[in-house]
Amino acid sequence: MKKIAIFPGTFDPFTKGHDALVRRGLSFLDEIIIAIGVNDSKKTMISLEDRIKAINSVYGEDSRVKVIAYDGLTVDFAVQQNAKIILRGIRTTTDLEYEKLIADVNRKVAGIETVMLITEPEYAHVSSTIVRELMRYGRDVSEFLP
Amino acid sequence: MKKIAIFPGTFDPFTKGHDALVRRGLSFLDEIIIAIGVNDSKKTMISLEDRIKAINSVYGEDSRVKVIAYDGLTVDFAVQQNAKIILRGIRTTTDLEYEKLIADVNRKVAGIETVMLITEPEYAHVSSTIVRELMRYGRDVSEFLP
Amino acid sequence: MKKIAIFPGTFDPFTKGHDALVRRGLSFLDEIIIAIGVNDSKKTMISLEDRIKAINSVYGEDSRVKVIAYDGLTVDFAVQQNAKIILRGIRTTTDLEYEKLIADVNRKVAGIETVMLITEPEYAHVSSTIVRELMRYGRDVSEFLP
Amino acid sequence: MKKIAIFPGTFDPFTKGHDALVRRGLSFLDEIIIAIGVNDSKKTMISLEDRIKAINSVYGEDSRVKVIAYDGLTVDFAVQQNAKIILRGIRTTTDLEYEKLIADVNRKVAGIETVMLITEPEYAHVSSTIVRELMRYGRDVSEFLP
Amino acid sequence: MKKIAIFPGTFDPFTKGHDALVRRGLSFLDEIIIAIGVNDSKKTMISLEDRIKAINSVYGEDSRVKVIAYDGLTVDFAVQQNAKIILRGIRTTTDLEYEKLIADVNRKVAGIETVMLITEPEYAHVSSTIVRELMRYGRDVSEFLP
Amino acid sequence: MKKIAIFPGTFDPFTKGHDALVRRGLSFLDEIIIAIGVNDSKKTMISLEDRIKAINSVYGEDSRVKVIAYDGLTVDFAVQQNAKIILRGIRTTTDLEYEKLIADVNRKVAGIETVMLITEPEYAHVSSTIVRELMRYGRDVSEFLP
Repeated sequence: MKKIAIFPGTFDPFTKGHDALVRRGLSFLDEIIIAIGVNDSKKTMISLEDRIKAINSVYGEDSRVKVIAYDGLTVDFAVQQNAKIILRGIRTTTDLEYEKLIADVNRKVAGIETVMLITEPEYAHVSSTIVRELMRYGRDVSEFLP
Repeated sequence: MKKIAIFPGTFDPFTKGHDALVRRGLSFLDEIIIAIGVNDSKKTMISLEDRIKAINSVYGEDSRVKVIAYDGLTVDFAVQQNAKIILRGIRTTTDLEYEKLIADVNRKVAGIETVMLITEPEYAHVSSTIVRELMRYGRDVSEFLP
Repeated sequence: MKKIAIFPGTFDPFTKGHDALVRRGLSFLDEIIIAIGVNDSKKTMISLEDRIKAINSVYGEDSRVKVIAYDGLTVDFAVQQNAKIILRGIRTTTDLEYEKLIADVNRKVAGIETVMLITEPEYAHVSSTIVRELMRYGRDVSEFLP
Repeated sequence: MKKIAIFPGTFDPFTKGHDALVRRGLSFLDEIIIAIGVNDSKKTMISLEDRIKAINSVYGEDSRVKVIAYDGLTVDFAVQQNAKIILRGIRTTTDLEYEKLIADVNRKVAGIETVMLITEPEYAHVSSTIVRELMRYGRDVSEFLP
Repeated sequence: MKKIAIFPGTFDPFTKGHDALVRRGLSFLDEIIIAIGVNDSKKTMISLEDRIKAINSVYGEDSRVKVIAYDGLTVDFAVQQNAKIILRGIRTTTDLEYEKLIADVNRKVAGIETVMLITEPEYAHVSSTIVRELMRYGRDVSEFLP
Repeated sequence: MKKIAIFPGTFDPFTKGHDALVRRGLSFLDEIIIAIGVNDSKKTMISLEDRIKAINSVYGEDSRVKVIAYDGLTVDFAVQQNAKIILRGIRTTTDLEYEKLIADVNRKVAGIETVMLITEPEYAHVSSTIVRELMRYGRDVSEFLP
């Protein structure tokens, strides 16, 4: 059976850190769906179309990676896509505790397993939040993007 | 390509918590080698033979699970077994920080990826250390063993 | 002297996790006042009336448990109720650090002691935030409520 | 029913930090048994007799505080003393995670509740380990003792 | 070469905890610029003018301490002020993880070093957030201010 | 007044991570004494002489860095060397909590300030413990040494 995982996030923007997690995930998964969560009440800096385009330009040739936007509960999207696994990166212990609660709920309400990769040290500081902050003040952020 | 992981530990004893991690790992891995680390300077409560026997009695029928003892570096054993992945369970943030350092080294010196599963809450307290402590004082520990 | 504690929160909704803390607290406290903090600038999903009604239906017969809404500082409410103790549950290390700062201030400004219970593992993921998120998408959440 | 708690530790030595926890515990408990764990394989700096004497000299007049040495499992001692509660101080998040595992086991195997107080900031650094280290090098440590 | 550091924050209000960090920083730095970050989208309780005045009244006589408001990226302000160092206080492990990410970025994008002091225990709970909360309810907060 | 710090440790071995901390410390300190703690009850892999020689070969030309072995309390050594500052690297939150307790004691008993640098991510996994483990199994560790 094909091992399909979703990799959910806002990806505003999709960084080198996200890219590294996807590539590492492909070492033990057959397919990764990059799942862009859409939340009407949350304003993003980059439009959904541009985020999809940017991610597609990274993996365009690799049929194992797909990009799909979704709204609603992440587990409902996972079930609908036939994905049994959620892939998550952990940077800090604060991340761990948050992810643990979500993972427990997702296992309980939908039988979805969550697999964690610890962010590589060289990408730990490359968060979308920090990149957006740098963009806001006109800094060149290309070194943080794939 | 077959996805083989090693699941290293001392397993003194192998608990329900370990068992849960192996079963969850099988949802995205093709084969798991339960790798019993042997360290001459570290005395165990249960003999190596009895630990191997106990684990085999759990997975005897499942060809996807093997039990092998090893000494030396864990990554060297992984390479020798053709395993590209180390499977680890995380219970606490203290675990996370320790595992992160080891995982970074293992990726660096041998290209081995470490995949983390967060321990399910109902098994979080079922550590080998606590089970041994209960055994030492004559408590029945069968509820903690698979 | 009667040992009275307040158990403050928003309880939007009051979950099985809250209920477990109250019941555990009753093993060493004489009276627990479930203190619903009212904050005009914070919108809740469930109305104050419905939250009071739901909690009362859980403890209706137990004279050791009261439900009272309050605004203002939690310690001021505690003093006014003759409560010397604040009861709090801790789920994560992030909780601990937050609670520690608040507890230090409360001890300093009003001589109120804070007593902590660590959330039982089976309720660790049952946070009001997560339950609200599930409610928002139409999931049945009755298994998380007392 | 009288609310009896045990406050277990090695108390080598019993510090101002321990004393502060006992006094805070008495604000919501009827009796506290300071339970000195005796472990033949663990060498202490101060003899058991001297530790008992030192603690008694602090609480001699207070019938709510007792000092008793025990060996074996802490929960077995609690049950034998008719204590339903274990009182513990938490200094750090590392403490929390350790205490959580022990508390979960104690609740499970013996129905004993664990109640946590966060160490007051002014005593956070007053650990027995650090006091022993200072004693070893001939420092006056009286400011750390009650 | 003169060792100049900036000590960035909102200082709404500037507390005894901030003051203690500045004084400790002066034991190894030649000059500290208290850098008040101005962010149009973030409303403060105390006006910028009053914050500057309050801080100046504390260090008025000490030529090693300056107060300057800035907007934009903190590192850009540091570079413009010829400061090679950012001074930060850490209270909790949550603080550490946040500061670590920011410090890594600041080193990377501008070669600015971040030096951390751990908050003294007696000031750990004196956060601006808590002081504002007390002010909001009419409490006297002068004991928390320098 | 000259700003002198001690940088205490066992340095068994002195790694690239230690070296990075010393170099970063020199950006705001005038002199750093690398203080090798000697503890008769703790066996090291590398002899004291070889550790001193190795460190000297790194900083031989730089008069701002000295290497001295000491036994006894670290603060006593600091006082004796006229150093007002202890320089420490922090890798993890577990480190932070340990360092905090020690720093509070050192400030209290000897007025010595502790200044923390967070380990750069690329060196976070380069601990002496891990390097020794690799050496034990015959791995080449030169990439971890300065």
